[in-house]
Amino acid sequence: MIDKLIEKIQKTKAPIVVGLDPTLKFVPEHIKEAAFKELGETLEGAAEAIWQYNKGLVDAVCDLIPAVKPQAAMYEQFGVPGMEAFRKTVDYCQSKGLVVIGDVKRGDIGSTSEAYAVAHLGKVQIGGNSVSPFGEDFATVNPYLGSDGIQPFLKVCGEEKKGIFVLVKTSNPSSGEFQDRLVDGKALYELVGEQVARWGEGCMGEKGYSRVGAVVGATYPEQGKLLRRVMPKTFILVPGYGAQGGKGADLVHFFNEDGLGAIINSSRGIIAAYQQEQYARFGSLGYADAARAAVLDMKADIEGALQAR
Amino acid sequence: MIDKLIEKIQKTKAPIVVGLDPTLKFVPEHIKEAAFKELGETLEGAAEAIWQYNKGLVDAVCDLIPAVKPQAAMYEQFGVPGMEAFRKTVDYCQSKGLVVIGDVKRGDIGSTSEAYAVAHLGKVQIGGNSVSPFGEDFATVNPYLGSDGIQPFLKVCGEEKKGIFVLVKTSNPSSGEFQDRLVDGKALYELVGEQVARWGEGCMGEKGYSRVGAVVGATYPEQGKLLRRVMPKTFILVPGYGAQGGKGADLVHFFNEDGLGAIINSSRGIIAAYQQEQYARFGSLGYADAARAAVLDMKADIEGALQAR
Repeated sequence: MIDKLIEKIQKTKAPIVVGLDPTLKFVPEHIKEAAFKELGETLEGAAEAIWQYNKGLVDAVCDLIPAVKPQAAMYEQFGVPGMEAFRKTVDYCQSKGLVVIGDVKRGDIGSTSEAYAVAHLGKVQIGGNSVSPFGEDFATVNPYLGSDGIQPFLKVCGEEKKGIFVLVKTSNPSSGEFQDRLVDGKALYELVGEQVARWGEGCMGEKGYSRVGAVVGATYPEQGKLLRRVMPKTFILVPGYGAQGGKGADLVHFFNEDGLGAIINSSRGIIAAYQQEQYARFGSLGYADAARAAVLDMKADIEGALQAR
Repeated sequence: MIDKLIEKIQKTKAPIVVGLDPTLKFVPEHIKEAAFKELGETLEGAAEAIWQYNKGLVDAVCDLIPAVKPQAAMYEQFGVPGMEAFRKTVDYCQSKGLVVIGDVKRGDIGSTSEAYAVAHLGKVQIGGNSVSPFGEDFATVNPYLGSDGIQPFLKVCGEEKKGIFVLVKTSNPSSGEFQDRLVDGKALYELVGEQVARWGEGCMGEKGYSRVGAVVGATYPEQGKLLRRVMPKTFILVPGYGAQGGKGADLVHFFNEDGLGAIINSSRGIIAAYQQEQYARFGSLGYADAARAAVLDMKADIEGALQAR
């Protein structure tokens, strides 16, 4: 799957992943009205609204980008119907040829971690049947519990040829509270990065990158530069572009010399572009076209920054 | 809710939480057969099987214990129907007067963390309606992302009078990989413990304990002793009893002098007791009675250890 991701990045010339993080305040009124009219102001109504919203977005941008990253929290907040919308979104994106990164940030131990791995990347055995529960292509994973939390994911990734992105240095302001603390003169995120590189050694794809990726926030370009060196064969998923303050010029250090090795996420900057002054001309009926325009602008920003380095 | 948990612990004289972590290999054949006959060897069939299994367990032990802890991974592995079984389990346990700790180990930042908090502890606003998505009483949370990940949970906990348990020192063998690393002479878990105590200061219940609890594994009694001192007003959720190797005598240091301050989890040791030699006499038809016997034995073990200290 890491090879498919790389192929798609090369084909689209866009190291971009669109975060499908729907909240009701992003969903245009006409979509909410239709959904609430049919199903009421209920979990079912909200789930239908975000699903229709997602479908419009995916249709508008699927030829431009290699991957999407639905954020599980935004679906879980709508309960069981929300998780149904998550599942439908994963299926729909895959039917359009997109790689799906489930941003689930799961992390547990032993058989529990294996259950999460099975839920999101694998197949569960039920009597004589083997069934895919949610079926993403990648999942994000929290490293705090150590190798016991990661190994079950690696096992499932090996079986299914799928991958994970491990949180290393997150994009938020307080990420340094624990991640930056010095251990023997090295920041904790660097130790985690070294471990990510080791976990990845037995899981190499055919294009020079491992199936074990890392998450490093666009808001920390210096740390990104260091981690690029620490994890040369690790693909880096970079959140924090746009709304969180990261710019194209901050991103160049996350890429290797081959122009690969990183994929930049933007969520609200794309999916709620129509609510920004820059794309207000599209109006809420044109929310999907606004998203397409924002993807094209983001692509140009990153291309420009990479060429200028 | 921390006050209700303490009240129930005092009333049942059992600082015990039963982990409702159903996997199909724990579910007795007669329950699986009935569910598969009705719904097939499908996600729906598996979800029905674990739900019926849970109901039997809860009926058998609900008068003995204050709380249950369903492990989200074990439900997520059965996809959307599994999450429906999770929701039904939470509702059913609450209808029996049990406090429900959602073992979800979620952790993200800002609005995403808030969405998780809303999903599991709060209410989501849909048009003019305010709806409870999953509705647990407590949730477990991962601290790796720092305060940005915790504050949204504290906000929702304040509004709903609910609580969280933050992972501090987990019970697994490799938990030390990052958690034990020394920062300025202190282990990372101790720093996290200090932060948990600070997060809890503004969230005190009426019985002397905070709504911000901690997870510390039974398998690390020495670290438990230290963390008990670092977080005197923090309730500690202690996994790792029984199947993972923790014994009653290891647990005494997790309690304060008042006999409170800790709640011990056992999952498979209770819910799959009938598969152990010690309780084999109950047979698979008597799985729920076996669970009841195992709870009574665990209660006696912990009572004995606390009296002997």
